Amino acid sequence: MTESAQSLGIAMVGHAFMGAVHSHAWRNVHRFFDVPLTPRMVVLGGRDEQRAKEAADRFGWAAVETDWRELVRRDDVDLVDICTPGDTHAEIAIAALEAGKHVLCEKPLANTVAEAERMAEAAARAEARGVRSMVAFNYRRVPALSLARQLVAEGRLGELRHVRAVYLQDWLSDATAPMTWRLRKEQAGSGALGDIGAHIVDAAQFVTGEHITGVSGFVETFVPHRRGADGADEDVTVDDCAVFTGRLSSGAVATFEATRYALGRKNAMRIEVNGSRGSLAFDFESMNELWFYDGDEPGETAGFHRIVATEPQHPYVGAWWPPGHGLGYEHTFTHEIADLLRAIGEGTSPQPGFADGLRVQRVLAAVERSAAEGARWTQVDDMK
Amino acid sequence: MTESAQSLGIAMVGHAFMGAVHSHAWRNVHRFFDVPLTPRMVVLGGRDEQRAKEAADRFGWAAVETDWRELVRRDDVDLVDICTPGDTHAEIAIAALEAGKHVLCEKPLANTVAEAERMAEAAARAEARGVRSMVAFNYRRVPALSLARQLVAEGRLGELRHVRAVYLQDWLSDATAPMTWRLRKEQAGSGALGDIGAHIVDAAQFVTGEHITGVSGFVETFVPHRRGADGADEDVTVDDCAVFTGRLSSGAVATFEATRYALGRKNAMRIEVNGSRGSLAFDFESMNELWFYDGDEPGETAGFHRIVATEPQHPYVGAWWPPGHGLGYEHTFTHEIADLLRAIGEGTSPQPGFADGLRVQRVLAAVERSAAEGARWTQVDDMK
Amino acid sequence: MTESAQSLGIAMVGHAFMGAVHSHAWRNVHRFFDVPLTPRMVVLGGRDEQRAKEAADRFGWAAVETDWRELVRRDDVDLVDICTPGDTHAEIAIAALEAGKHVLCEKPLANTVAEAERMAEAAARAEARGVRSMVAFNYRRVPALSLARQLVAEGRLGELRHVRAVYLQDWLSDATAPMTWRLRKEQAGSGALGDIGAHIVDAAQFVTGEHITGVSGFVETFVPHRRGADGADEDVTVDDCAVFTGRLSSGAVATFEATRYALGRKNAMRIEVNGSRGSLAFDFESMNELWFYDGDEPGETAGFHRIVATEPQHPYVGAWWPPGHGLGYEHTFTHEIADLLRAIGEGTSPQPGFADGLRVQRVLAAVERSAAEGARWTQVDDMK
Amino acid sequence: MTESAQSLGIAMVGHAFMGAVHSHAWRNVHRFFDVPLTPRMVVLGGRDEQRAKEAADRFGWAAVETDWRELVRRDDVDLVDICTPGDTHAEIAIAALEAGKHVLCEKPLANTVAEAERMAEAAARAEARGVRSMVAFNYRRVPALSLARQLVAEGRLGELRHVRAVYLQDWLSDATAPMTWRLRKEQAGSGALGDIGAHIVDAAQFVTGEHITGVSGFVETFVPHRRGADGADEDVTVDDCAVFTGRLSSGAVATFEATRYALGRKNAMRIEVNGSRGSLAFDFESMNELWFYDGDEPGETAGFHRIVATEPQHPYVGAWWPPGHGLGYEHTFTHEIADLLRAIGEGTSPQPGFADGLRVQRVLAAVERSAAEGARWTQVDDMK
Repeated sequence: MTESAQSLGIAMVGHAFMGAVHSHAWRNVHRFFDVPLTPRMVVLGGRDEQRAKEAADRFGWAAVETDWRELVRRDDVDLVDICTPGDTHAEIAIAALEAGKHVLCEKPLANTVAEAERMAEAAARAEARGVRSMVAFNYRRVPALSLARQLVAEGRLGELRHVRAVYLQDWLSDATAPMTWRLRKEQAGSGALGDIGAHIVDAAQFVTGEHITGVSGFVETFVPHRRGADGADEDVTVDDCAVFTGRLSSGAVATFEATRYALGRKNAMRIEVNGSRGSLAFDFESMNELWFYDGDEPGETAGFHRIVATEPQHPYVGAWWPPGHGLGYEHTFTHEIADLLRAIGEGTSPQPGFADGLRVQRVLAAVERSAAEGARWTQVDDMK
Repeated sequence: MTESAQSLGIAMVGHAFMGAVHSHAWRNVHRFFDVPLTPRMVVLGGRDEQRAKEAADRFGWAAVETDWRELVRRDDVDLVDICTPGDTHAEIAIAALEAGKHVLCEKPLANTVAEAERMAEAAARAEARGVRSMVAFNYRRVPALSLARQLVAEGRLGELRHVRAVYLQDWLSDATAPMTWRLRKEQAGSGALGDIGAHIVDAAQFVTGEHITGVSGFVETFVPHRRGADGADEDVTVDDCAVFTGRLSSGAVATFEATRYALGRKNAMRIEVNGSRGSLAFDFESMNELWFYDGDEPGETAGFHRIVATEPQHPYVGAWWPPGHGLGYEHTFTHEIADLLRAIGEGTSPQPGFADGLRVQRVLAAVERSAAEGARWTQVDDMK
Repeated sequence: MTESAQSLGIAMVGHAFMGAVHSHAWRNVHRFFDVPLTPRMVVLGGRDEQRAKEAADRFGWAAVETDWRELVRRDDVDLVDICTPGDTHAEIAIAALEAGKHVLCEKPLANTVAEAERMAEAAARAEARGVRSMVAFNYRRVPALSLARQLVAEGRLGELRHVRAVYLQDWLSDATAPMTWRLRKEQAGSGALGDIGAHIVDAAQFVTGEHITGVSGFVETFVPHRRGADGADEDVTVDDCAVFTGRLSSGAVATFEATRYALGRKNAMRIEVNGSRGSLAFDFESMNELWFYDGDEPGETAGFHRIVATEPQHPYVGAWWPPGHGLGYEHTFTHEIADLLRAIGEGTSPQPGFADGLRVQRVLAAVERSAAEGARWTQVDDMK
Repeated sequence: MTESAQSLGIAMVGHAFMGAVHSHAWRNVHRFFDVPLTPRMVVLGGRDEQRAKEAADRFGWAAVETDWRELVRRDDVDLVDICTPGDTHAEIAIAALEAGKHVLCEKPLANTVAEAERMAEAAARAEARGVRSMVAFNYRRVPALSLARQLVAEGRLGELRHVRAVYLQDWLSDATAPMTWRLRKEQAGSGALGDIGAHIVDAAQFVTGEHITGVSGFVETFVPHRRGADGADEDVTVDDCAVFTGRLSSGAVATFEATRYALGRKNAMRIEVNGSRGSLAFDFESMNELWFYDGDEPGETAGFHRIVATEPQHPYVGAWWPPGHGLGYEHTFTHEIADLLRAIGEGTSPQPGFADGLRVQRVLAAVERSAAEGARWTQVDDMK
């Protein structure tokens, strides 16, 4: 933050888990990063006024709006941050972009490819007018994963052969855990596939710098009914897990698994990449570490390096603490918003944009079509 | 070994890597385990007499035979141990069984399902006459994996939801590594799939006590030609890696990957199983450890237990050293042969038998068919 | 934060590393914790007005003072947070307490036992008037270490036999690294011993609930001169490392090491405790994990549990994110300040108090005396 | 083993744990290593003839002797391997050496410095006559630790600053575990100090290539009485644990701990060394791994390498299995005996010799004297 930094009026829609963590980032980003624009936390959107007010008070927003359409129209708002369930993303994001507001949208970008396409088109039109948009794949901003991307881009892995990515959680392992909106297709779009599978699909594409071109897989719902808040059983209409194989544009071979039933794995977002010159491995449960195998080293001392990614030369870390003083989950959002503010300030396109979000959506749709057709190999580009 | 132990005449065919490790087990098994039969290392089979003699001298075999047919017929031979490439297994094993010799056969059981079926039929006929047969899936005898099987059998994992198994090596990562028989389809049958994929297919079925009922996947050959001993390029006619999803008989969801291109992973045979009550994880690179998550524990102290599987109450360990004094790779063969000798002595069927080997073969064939048909879902029982 | 929360005016002295992290905690604590008092960031103290203003602007303080005496006197200040080098702690803290301000003081409490005693006496006098004081041993508020304390207090470890604690850094490994105030005895008091040794001494006493009664050890300065900012060599007048053995009040045997020369160890603050019923191990480089061995478990499945201390029932964690979404270094300060605000609001004594800081100081002094007298066993209570 | 290899007649005294593992090495060494002398397992010494015969039968010794004096005199014996408790080492070893037999002696070399000195003198006299002697610090032959020594010798660690070594076991944690000879001073000499402390003292000296010049420490006996086989309580007359600090000849700072009360640690023989250019860490519970930090690497990718020490270029490994196929505890003895046979065959001095054993003994004696004198700093060279 510098004396001359201009401010940017922020509106946020939604105030559950994602709202809490985004608020934290908006509140603190300029305390650590030299961003060209200082965020003003102008208004929080929520349908229930009382609950929205409580959240605004706690999170530090100056006002509330119960109608997102009002919020999008406000003159004191320059950017809309969308933290609502996926079925609402398209409508809000497109309206905001058309109103000339920059947009940060939580992932997955949308619940369908069709929605995602409309959003990407709206983003492209807005981009031409200098209005920016970003989809919140926050794991790209884990310093260790950002470092992984750098090493691949520098050619340290050589020709890529393998990606294996899993996202393992266990909060549904207990068959008596209650029904939530995340298990209803009409709101969540899909289950583990869209919620956490989206993250590893994006991570695989981000770290490798490639596209997933085809997939084959299937999904499963282990517990078909759950008890709702009203005490009645309700059908679970989304997948509990998804497993699929895939190909990257270079021909590399990939495997993916997203599940909420890996008992004991709390948030194990893992990715390993093997190339002809080196390999990388990451596990979010140890988020400050990146493992790197340098195939150019003599065999006597070769071995996976446990890089504690907390050195000043590691991405984003210089803004924080001395080496070995690890970062946490919410830092990834602060980094994301720092990059977004810089892009807006500099007039460049923030990454990942809605086109990236659409590409993830197409991969997810390809998995669903493959699953519906006996795991048949499915091209991602054919996806609508 | 007891005073009254009878002896068993052993013949072994093949004296490369597997021959060395089997010899070690035959030489030492009765020094640690109270087996009802003491092995006599009677004869070693090898086509080149000079090389066979050198191997026999080194490994401790009393004589050599250059023709396996002679070896199988010898009166002083009670058991034939087959350590040759897969294309020779069927002929030798069937001849040995028909000659009334017990058989231990290296994995994969055969190069085709048809051969494996004939072997399983011969084994069943021999069994009726008290002649025993076993296929050498040695990883079942890693104490930690054997303990894993026990915990599943005791119900400690509850209803099984997930299996994820990989076998990662890197000895072909270097595109200039030379041609070997393991890369020729006519000798090896397949590449990573049959060589190391067979191990994780068996391990998944062993640990869960279930069958793989269907699969979908594909294979890849990254380096299509390699330089042979004669200096000329030769086509690689087997897969370099195989990736596939699958289902177990209980409905559990499984993923598999076998590769020789995971740079930095030397022999990472890994399996994780998640159930409704518990989870297990194993990595052969830390072969003396089993990780167990007990879902019945209170959340405050729940976590994956790092079980150092070197306690007297762990399988096979009581025969060896005090706690914390780890075992190595070759112990798995000593355990296997101890169990085989006990089964022969007690007149029971050793595990895994040729029927188990056939079942693995059918899974591998299903993967190959699926791969040939666009990753289409393929039932294992349809395999011929 | 509730509507009815009263506010508390905060002044902070010092704005380097500790100032940055304390500011972050003051700015955010009430966003996550239901504290009875909301902090107002009133004034930042710093000798150089320009630099203080820049820091205040970045960190979010409303005003600056260049004379800490003025700051301590201000009516709008209720609490003074001391983040300056150790040689200034006593004077500022005592003045603040006498002015009726609550005090939070960075560790080590002071540079000498005599200063620490005067501070503890001042704190005791203030306490009688309802004025609270706390020393900032932030590692107590790592959720995993706080959980460790709980498990010991619940008797899960039984009778304690061993403590082994190390604090390993490497920022002085490079003999050409420049001179800093931390290497001058008159400012820093001591080197690794007081800076990081203090943390493990406090952690050992905190986790066990015991006192260190005697020690034997020595210190070393590996690099006796370093280049200063003016280009001239300057003597290093503090220790580079300290190693010592010790006894706890229960008779348990302890070992300690603090060093800035453990190349590759960035911030490895580690402690392991072994008891007759259980054991615990922690390493700050993996700060979200606690390892717990439960000796009451049957040997078959016993093993160190890797507790990922991010569950709602773990200390402090409920205020943050879902399981598996790890916390970082600065959270420990937020927790510390939340506890301090609660204690002030509830009229109780915050922990650790200045008496705890004094006790740590006495242990450090005993180590220095032992070091000066040929590692002779030295009683802690004799220390002045 | 080559056709032309001559044989060496071996006698072994003692047939408990160490006898079992030494027998295994004698039986197998020439099957894997090209040693110039093939061992003949001539005779096993044991006081109880029946038990000795059973052990000889199981372990593969051709005959037994109940009087070690007879055994030492036999013409068909070229080497005496001493696996008895420490109080008998000196008498047997000196008699054997004087009879012109090579000697392999288990550690610790003796129960007192005086005995060890007499043994070292006898060894020096025998050496002049071409009679060799070795003390069995088997951990030197863990491939990972042998590699550690190589890296230090190559200067990869630079100037050494720190050694921290612990040997943690837990078999006495249970206060009701029964009395054994290992807890009687007259037989065992000392407790954890001599039994396992000896190993880490030797390892520290071996890996660094330096001597421990001074120590300060203390010992403790947590459980003073234990129930004997006869049902009566008996005094424990040795230490349960020992902790000490020390100096190496280069000035490096060291810490040591040996205990049998570290609940959950089964055989955690650990050593870490930090230098100005690099660091090394090893834990026997993961015996096939060496961790190496290369300070010359750029900070971006620097990190401890997890070297899986199973590559052909790693010490001893070429004789065994392919990469990633780990070795176990007993391999260290096979390596030791391979080196001993080579030294005898080549007419060189095997390492470590009795002089090395004596040096370890002096360190242990210095620890005991320091413990007796209030942890006072004690020079190792003054020890008698």
